[in-house]
Amino acid sequence: MGDAPTLELSGERFRAVYHLSGTREEAYARARDICLEQTVEYPEDLITSEYIKERVVGRVRDLERVARGRYRALIEFPVEVAAGELTQLVNVLFGNISLKPGIRLVGFALPASMLRIYPGPRFGRDGLRELLSVCGRPLLATALKPMGLSVAELSRLAHQLALGGIDLIKDDHGLADQPFCPFQERVLRCGEAVREANRATGLRSIYLPNVTAPANEMKRRVEIAREAGAGGLLMAPGIIGLDAMRRIAADDSVGLPLLSHPAFQGSFTIHEDHGLSHGTLYGMLNRLAGADGAIFPNHGGRFSFSPGQCRDLVNGTEIDMPGIRPIFPVPAGGMSLERVPELLEFYGRDAILLIGGDLHRHGSDLVESCREFRKLVEL
Amino acid sequence: MGDAPTLELSGERFRAVYHLSGTREEAYARARDICLEQTVEYPEDLITSEYIKERVVGRVRDLERVARGRYRALIEFPVEVAAGELTQLVNVLFGNISLKPGIRLVGFALPASMLRIYPGPRFGRDGLRELLSVCGRPLLATALKPMGLSVAELSRLAHQLALGGIDLIKDDHGLADQPFCPFQERVLRCGEAVREANRATGLRSIYLPNVTAPANEMKRRVEIAREAGAGGLLMAPGIIGLDAMRRIAADDSVGLPLLSHPAFQGSFTIHEDHGLSHGTLYGMLNRLAGADGAIFPNHGGRFSFSPGQCRDLVNGTEIDMPGIRPIFPVPAGGMSLERVPELLEFYGRDAILLIGGDLHRHGSDLVESCREFRKLVEL
Repeated sequence: MGDAPTLELSGERFRAVYHLSGTREEAYARARDICLEQTVEYPEDLITSEYIKERVVGRVRDLERVARGRYRALIEFPVEVAAGELTQLVNVLFGNISLKPGIRLVGFALPASMLRIYPGPRFGRDGLRELLSVCGRPLLATALKPMGLSVAELSRLAHQLALGGIDLIKDDHGLADQPFCPFQERVLRCGEAVREANRATGLRSIYLPNVTAPANEMKRRVEIAREAGAGGLLMAPGIIGLDAMRRIAADDSVGLPLLSHPAFQGSFTIHEDHGLSHGTLYGMLNRLAGADGAIFPNHGGRFSFSPGQCRDLVNGTEIDMPGIRPIFPVPAGGMSLERVPELLEFYGRDAILLIGGDLHRHGSDLVESCREFRKLVEL
Repeated sequence: MGDAPTLELSGERFRAVYHLSGTREEAYARARDICLEQTVEYPEDLITSEYIKERVVGRVRDLERVARGRYRALIEFPVEVAAGELTQLVNVLFGNISLKPGIRLVGFALPASMLRIYPGPRFGRDGLRELLSVCGRPLLATALKPMGLSVAELSRLAHQLALGGIDLIKDDHGLADQPFCPFQERVLRCGEAVREANRATGLRSIYLPNVTAPANEMKRRVEIAREAGAGGLLMAPGIIGLDAMRRIAADDSVGLPLLSHPAFQGSFTIHEDHGLSHGTLYGMLNRLAGADGAIFPNHGGRFSFSPGQCRDLVNGTEIDMPGIRPIFPVPAGGMSLERVPELLEFYGRDAILLIGGDLHRHGSDLVESCREFRKLVEL
């Protein structure tokens, strides 16, 4: 120790913004602690190298009060610390400090040199609109459910949903490779059912199988899906890791739009004084990791997000990140046809509206319920 | 819908135990909601198939009061719902409900038919003791840090730490593949430094590089580590996904002991009324996913775990799971030589005690500090 590393650091930095609980003094101490904990993870008084102290440890650039007992800290980290890898970026932004209370990551900004590493979403909002040939209205989505249906039943549903004009028909995220609806058979038959409906309607509905799977199985599932003509893929980055999604998004041999599902991500956002903000996690990180649309539970459904948190999430899907396309927010989680006008008002046209179970509530004619859904957004 | 799936379900079930907030009525409603949310994700009144209602949806088997406004619910899920995959098991245990407040998973029990799918830790407590030839005392661990040191400096440290008799010398978890200490060079030189020290001491210290890395890079890093003669591997399942760790643990061509690091997992355990219990996440799930030791921040260090939570964690590392070996708890996070007697009393001999920065605080002779650490546990 003491000697400088052989390689000079560029001096370029990326920024992270945290909300910190406590008095100003406590918040400042927390901010300083983050600078050490997320880099050298070493007692400051034991660092004998001035080079490391000045060039490797994070820096508090700003601290301002945002509410009683709550401060906003802007911290800068050296670009090289994040190692050009999403896994290490996530680690620097919130790895060890996930174990400490009173810290919430509410934003980050990467310089062009870092953003270049991430191709981000392959389609994004414009690309997905073009692929599905939908402009001027929100896109419509639904899920194949309930779990327990056979492949024959699920594919019959998929056919009706596509006949009714739903743009994106995804697997329920709990459909994996269960014996009662095996992945390969499901993907083949549901994909074919949607294409058959498209031939009848002239529309371009797509089927998105759930490829959330064991690490050694993901690639095979994605290949099966592609070969079966799936129009997109669904996955839960909270379960497989954000970088597993990035890997698929970056793979030119796949080339399909991706929807991210928030399963197992909720603990990061559920307490306002801890974790990651909705915009940072569901919006920015999913987007950096290549999702073209981020599914989340809308306010007023069966989950816990507030209108403000949903706004923040939308902001994360479109906030300026040079070279990284804006993506669709996909409000879901107990939505209903009755709420479509309100959804339209809240989200505008740049959203994918996902209604699951409720589509099955409106009379016995599922195709007709889908057409009604569509009419509601074409107004 | 209405027709039964072609394949009959076995009727075998696995169990999950949740703590739920609220009155008894509210807790029961939450428990019922979990049964639906984690399986069919569909309004109960719309399920027309009795088969699905009875055989696919979870079942509340017990609800008892554990404290004021807090109930313990035992829920059973059909084995087939978890699809024989760790990813889907995690999804059933806590996927969507991570988005709902007032629910904490505090335990689970899998039948033999499910446990058989998971080889679990390759070494476990006994295997690691045998590998390192250590019996009758806790194992000793430390981390190579601070970030910013060159490979030459880190390998010099590794040499001294091994000379001093530390059993497990791991990369700091923030060391990835940074330009100032590239992975391949680091692994080669630190591994060689530890082996050289072993030749001098006759001990069996091992070096565990951090292989937390992008999804398309993990396999290569693990291979580099193995070829360079690394004695074990460190990884953060919160970042790469639990199943990515399981994949490496199950790979016979790797065959090395694994330490799990809790980075980016803290949000699951930080609020007592939500998430996963310490025993369930750091203990049981890490163990099922193949970690031989689970690093966590000990109480009274720079983090937030309480003594009770640490006890619960230890319980998860050794609770009866037929066929899955008990693993080592690895208390860390700001520990010091002064606290070793207390650590010994709290954890007994079946632990790996990890002291990082503090080893560097005791005089300029690092080798001597390590020997002192060792003497403290050999008493």
